[in-house]
Amino acid sequence: MSHDFVKKSLTRRGVLKGAASGAGAAVLGAGAARAQGPDPLITEKQDWATGLGDGVDATPYGLPIKYEDDVVRRNVPWLTADPISSINFTPIHALDGTITPQGCAFERHHSGAIELKKEDYRLMINGLVDTPLVFSYADLERFPRENRVYFCECAANTGMEWAGAQLNGAQFTHGMIHNMEYTGIPLRTLLEEAGLAAAGDLKDKWVYVEGADASSNGRSIPMDKALDDVLVAFKANGEALRKEHGYPVRLVVPGWEGNMWVKWLRRIEVTEAAVESREETSKYTDTLADGTSRKWTWVMDAKSVVTSPSPQSPIRHGKGPLVITGLAWSGRGAITRVDVSKDGGKTWETARLAQEGQNKALTRFYLDTTWDGEDMLLQSRAMDETGYVQPTKHQLREVRGENSVYHNNCIQTWHVKPNGEAENVEVS
Amino acid sequence: MSHDFVKKSLTRRGVLKGAASGAGAAVLGAGAARAQGPDPLITEKQDWATGLGDGVDATPYGLPIKYEDDVVRRNVPWLTADPISSINFTPIHALDGTITPQGCAFERHHSGAIELKKEDYRLMINGLVDTPLVFSYADLERFPRENRVYFCECAANTGMEWAGAQLNGAQFTHGMIHNMEYTGIPLRTLLEEAGLAAAGDLKDKWVYVEGADASSNGRSIPMDKALDDVLVAFKANGEALRKEHGYPVRLVVPGWEGNMWVKWLRRIEVTEAAVESREETSKYTDTLADGTSRKWTWVMDAKSVVTSPSPQSPIRHGKGPLVITGLAWSGRGAITRVDVSKDGGKTWETARLAQEGQNKALTRFYLDTTWDGEDMLLQSRAMDETGYVQPTKHQLREVRGENSVYHNNCIQTWHVKPNGEAENVEVS
Repeated sequence: MSHDFVKKSLTRRGVLKGAASGAGAAVLGAGAARAQGPDPLITEKQDWATGLGDGVDATPYGLPIKYEDDVVRRNVPWLTADPISSINFTPIHALDGTITPQGCAFERHHSGAIELKKEDYRLMINGLVDTPLVFSYADLERFPRENRVYFCECAANTGMEWAGAQLNGAQFTHGMIHNMEYTGIPLRTLLEEAGLAAAGDLKDKWVYVEGADASSNGRSIPMDKALDDVLVAFKANGEALRKEHGYPVRLVVPGWEGNMWVKWLRRIEVTEAAVESREETSKYTDTLADGTSRKWTWVMDAKSVVTSPSPQSPIRHGKGPLVITGLAWSGRGAITRVDVSKDGGKTWETARLAQEGQNKALTRFYLDTTWDGEDMLLQSRAMDETGYVQPTKHQLREVRGENSVYHNNCIQTWHVKPNGEAENVEVS
Repeated sequence: MSHDFVKKSLTRRGVLKGAASGAGAAVLGAGAARAQGPDPLITEKQDWATGLGDGVDATPYGLPIKYEDDVVRRNVPWLTADPISSINFTPIHALDGTITPQGCAFERHHSGAIELKKEDYRLMINGLVDTPLVFSYADLERFPRENRVYFCECAANTGMEWAGAQLNGAQFTHGMIHNMEYTGIPLRTLLEEAGLAAAGDLKDKWVYVEGADASSNGRSIPMDKALDDVLVAFKANGEALRKEHGYPVRLVVPGWEGNMWVKWLRRIEVTEAAVESREETSKYTDTLADGTSRKWTWVMDAKSVVTSPSPQSPIRHGKGPLVITGLAWSGRGAITRVDVSKDGGKTWETARLAQEGQNKALTRFYLDTTWDGEDMLLQSRAMDETGYVQPTKHQLREVRGENSVYHNNCIQTWHVKPNGEAENVEVS
């Protein structure tokens, strides 16, 4: 092994420029390496298989390999597991792409996850409809379906951060979000099946939706949203919803706060007015500086976060080539641009979007850059198709005060240190 | 409960017309139902939660609910689990949408699934390159990444069907396919990092790729494909590749047969000519009627299958509204149209695509129709952006004879009987 070769290869195209610590080690040329036996680096490090591996009988349904056992939605002792109010966070610091596997997609329950058989499942549509109906699961399977990828974000995502930098990890500051491909029936189809003539002018009507769990988690949805893009969904990422995601049927309310995505959906009532349930009065409203509350704050505004590097995903290599990556999303439509700052918002570079932004779905962004090994104050700033720009925490506090829990979509800052470790910090 | 109400609701908009057997049962109106207590159908059938459900501490990484334990890739005793040649099938009959969860995505090993740590992983690029290189996993993480959804289909998918209708279920006839969102580095980037000037004219050059498992599963790929859309991938559906899918790194060769998607990827050699390895000579060639073999049959031609109704997904309801659904794909680009026949190919109806066809990815199609309760000979026929039309089995046999195993992309027929059961049959 020639260190000159290593250095030469690392500087060749500048891609790995300066990254002498192990980024792409040159070998002595194919012929040489093969004539002289395996490269030392390989024999030393790599335990190539010399016998048979495992067959397939152990994996009728597979799980991640044991080496990834820290990539889970529950990995710290302080998370509450009390069924009265329980939460697990998506390990977004360790994921890439946009799809969230169901197995590590965040879960939040208001009275625990319940077990409901398809055979026992019923969905009632009642209230101001021509013919109240009760659907079995088998009934639902007979209606035309749609497939759409949407993000689901808890209104309380990033809620702890209002008061300052609290939680040290993107999973905990921003992990109450997931992004899945849903298969379901437009709610419009089922409402029209029951008939809406009885509701008269639909403009000011509402639907009240509730789940079969003990909390019922009832929420009021304005009729125009109900008739727009809401889905009565039974599959996520191709397979049945998981128990903790509302098996067998949940509501999908694209772009709106996760609490409205009622799980174990049992009833949809067409109403004259909003019900003003607990979940939309004492909870899921935003207390302003003067003590009054904003209500009907359904839409999740444009937001983004750098997922790596981040406190749970430090830089383990030295200076040189670095991939900065993260997620962006907007409840108002597609993400059109994401900027990244390394200096706490003084200067910005436009990131590369892995795919064109999709309506109300996660967008993955990358900044392929070079790290000089110095401190960085990493931030990302999302823009959506309405022209909305993700605000700083300062801008958000000016409007909303510091009493809020919900709807914190401010720019997040990670302080990346010369040793590669990152910390949640606040910049003024 | 008034049966007139039921009937009335079922015929209201014609959507559930004629489906008197339980498709959408009307209730006595919202006010009545609530004033008089729960609807009898509900109290009888539905065990609504009256107490707390489960907390989240049991599900750091979740699995499907127990009621879905038949939706697995290994569910029949006759599947070989011998590590020398093992296979599990995606349960496509029970899935919807397009994404395949890793946990139930088909797996095929030529010498078993091996366990390789990221820390021990090395990827060598050698042969006709300017500077042979060895990359660690950490090195790979420093190169610009892409995210793309692609299908991966085993060349032997549907291979048993050449001789006639053999296997009774879409999972077994067509389940050697999955469709995931991959995150990886373009192979082009890594080849250019090693430098291709030494290879001279690239037009007739090849890359030889091999895995770290005992079979090595070496395959030759023409340089133009290698520089086009091949990815060196480390994530699928956002998370690390599963062990059985090549953790930590596999090759993604969009649109081409799954055997070339080398798992546990350890070496990429730029060569003057194809290596003519076992996996591309004695295997993965197509024996024609005259005994000669077609080789280099890499591309998976346009294909489709009705996943429901199908033998493992019979019609459980009576006549009336019926959703016919299935999957279509093409290794040559996007699916542009899928037709469905109920009479064995005599007449066709154009199905609805859930989303516009994506390049080399699964497309979900639906035909929202009405079943008269009579026999159906269900077929689907895919068309792709090149104008290619999926052939009948007869057409395919005329060209390819009956000695083949691989690349059977013919139209599949399910005989759906008046009792709703379906069977794999052949029509002339």
